[in-house]
Amino acid sequence: MSVALVGAGPGDPELITVRGLARVRACEVLVYDRLAAQELVGEAPASALRIARDDLTQSEVNDVLVRYGRVRRVVRLKGGDPFVFGRGGEEALALADAGIPFELVPGVSSIAAVPESALIPVTHRGISQAVTAFTAHDVEQLDVAALARVPGTLVAFMGGARAELLAERLIEHGKPASTPTAVIARGTLADEEVVVAPLGSLRGARATPALVVIGDVVGVREALAVRRSAA
Amino acid sequence: MSVALVGAGPGDPELITVRGLARVRACEVLVYDRLAAQELVGEAPASALRIARDDLTQSEVNDVLVRYGRVRRVVRLKGGDPFVFGRGGEEALALADAGIPFELVPGVSSIAAVPESALIPVTHRGISQAVTAFTAHDVEQLDVAALARVPGTLVAFMGGARAELLAERLIEHGKPASTPTAVIARGTLADEEVVVAPLGSLRGARATPALVVIGDVVGVREALAVRRSAA
Repeated sequence: MSVALVGAGPGDPELITVRGLARVRACEVLVYDRLAAQELVGEAPASALRIARDDLTQSEVNDVLVRYGRVRRVVRLKGGDPFVFGRGGEEALALADAGIPFELVPGVSSIAAVPESALIPVTHRGISQAVTAFTAHDVEQLDVAALARVPGTLVAFMGGARAELLAERLIEHGKPASTPTAVIARGTLADEEVVVAPLGSLRGARATPALVVIGDVVGVREALAVRRSAA
Repeated sequence: MSVALVGAGPGDPELITVRGLARVRACEVLVYDRLAAQELVGEAPASALRIARDDLTQSEVNDVLVRYGRVRRVVRLKGGDPFVFGRGGEEALALADAGIPFELVPGVSSIAAVPESALIPVTHRGISQAVTAFTAHDVEQLDVAALARVPGTLVAFMGGARAELLAERLIEHGKPASTPTAVIARGTLADEEVVVAPLGSLRGARATPALVVIGDVVGVREALAVRRSAA
């Protein structure tokens, strides 16, 4: 049989793709992340075997995909896009190694969709023509000097509580302390939380997973919000 | 009434989101790009007014959205994601200025989905934990020195014919000539074309719009393809 690696999108369940939802609805085995919306897990057939990924190591996940993929129609549902900070590449390699046919169904990545939900375009003519996305779970491991210099918008996937440390290091390496910054938690969900401040004044961001957006494009949010409320 | 800015995704029509398709099917006016799949234009109700964007300037598009948005349910269907290299921010500002309610429906951006279609993960554990996407229509305007230094994968939206010039400039600024590189045209479509070569040996890429992916992650494609065919 086969395995489809399907991106669930950034959180809101209606942001899965048409093909992704079709695959979930036709699966026999669903292997899913905590990050994938519960509503989507509910879209699998009642008869489908559901396996939560969160109790398994990556190597165990690979084994589950190979084992069931030999004999069943498996969907591996992953938050965001399977090939963006999602270890989808590792799962695809394990399947290829084992000779199991696999399909990649992209998803809406949080890189742009979460800022967009907060009214921030990651690129905007005259402001930013580039975007750099990175994981910053360990700020000390980053090449902050290079990140401080790259043109355009920075998007960091990280714990919100570390945002202040990332900001300090970027400023040490020449990023202006005045750079507009947004910290977004639970992006695209009903309880989305957005904090906006200059890079040098980030304070008290929560410890929850967050997307940190750094760049002048954050100002577009203010322009959109002001004009919206004035209208 | 209102305007929904909807991302059509990277090309393959089944890669629109569930919400995006619902908005297209319920619209009264559809304003669409050449880049949006014709199949999706066909999903609008037969009674809907269809307006091709390609004959209009950006300022005229903004005017059309404001004019119809006052009185009709409008969908503005854009290739990829509306807020990634798409001028969606400008359209949203025009609508906010005019006091027209608008909704943003993200789409699958080509940034990750097109490399994914060519079996290239833009991030992969142990290889790349960052991705920088940029437009490179005018290579001379780029801060190539900074781009050559940023860690992780580079993804350039550009004419394929300019890829060789971009490669030369990156190598001048220290990017290794051996860096694996892929030039992808018509990504996610049936006639997708992928050329893989070291950065220093890119030759004869076509003049069509392309996505150029530069980084060691391109090697994952080879690993996937070899194991797949050996299986």
